[in-house]
Amino acid sequence: MAAVSPTIDTLMMDAAFFAARAAAEAGEVPVGAVVARGKQCISVAHNLVETTPDPTAHAETLALRIAAQRLGVARLSDCTLYVTLEPCAMCAGALEHARINRIVFGAYDPKGGGVEHGARVFQRETCRHVPEIIGGYREKEAAKMLADFFQSLR
Amino acid sequence: MAAVSPTIDTLMMDAAFFAARAAAEAGEVPVGAVVARGKQCISVAHNLVETTPDPTAHAETLALRIAAQRLGVARLSDCTLYVTLEPCAMCAGALEHARINRIVFGAYDPKGGGVEHGARVFQRETCRHVPEIIGGYREKEAAKMLADFFQSLR
Repeated sequence: MAAVSPTIDTLMMDAAFFAARAAAEAGEVPVGAVVARGKQCISVAHNLVETTPDPTAHAETLALRIAAQRLGVARLSDCTLYVTLEPCAMCAGALEHARINRIVFGAYDPKGGGVEHGARVFQRETCRHVPEIIGGYREKEAAKMLADFFQSLR
Repeated sequence: MAAVSPTIDTLMMDAAFFAARAAAEAGEVPVGAVVARGKQCISVAHNLVETTPDPTAHAETLALRIAAQRLGVARLSDCTLYVTLEPCAMCAGALEHARINRIVFGAYDPKGGGVEHGARVFQRETCRHVPEIIGGYREKEAAKMLADFFQSLR
């Protein structure tokens, strides 16, 4: 965390929020993600499960895939993943495989999360890589966006 | 399981083994997967993590993505996923999201598995969908293929 200033975190999370709002406009659950390497934004993506259709097309997996393509490596051990919602078990597993250095997420997800809830992927003895994890970053803003989206569907 | 005969399971797992051998020839860890709907093979894929490069490109996630594309839906609730190795947490989470009806896997994976080991994704209270799971199908054959591959690397 030493080399990454709060300002960079803010800017990267801004991009993740921007992507999440684009997802909502496309009728997708509004979750956005960014992969960054220091000050450099490597990829931005949002949930695309219904549009593609692809059950694996969460914001985090898409951001990881694009970043790996751009950097030419499957391991992103010098990168941070920013995402507006706590990653699910699938995405936490993907972040483990990618050897991501750091995860910064917005809202906690007691029902669907796999980091602080449910499968708690990084807390298992067999977990091969445990990144630095910052949960609840701009939590209220992140939770409100999801709540507004689900209310709009009613 | 009633409508699917053992013969179909054998044929579909044959295709998964075939894909796994192709992965080994490409220098990838030999894991192969098939998505089938009854007697119909919808997709076949193998691990492509290093080739692509893509940390999420396990045989199962690729087979799910291709099947969802082919069928035009993100949920594969009438499909079976055949795979030569116990799915990891990422892939188990993907199978949960896909609402897969049934999972048939070959070798158990005490270190990397997320179904019977580690995150045990389908055993969590928050899990939204629990498929029928048949583990250890043609286990010796599946385990030998992996052991042969890792021995060849030494």
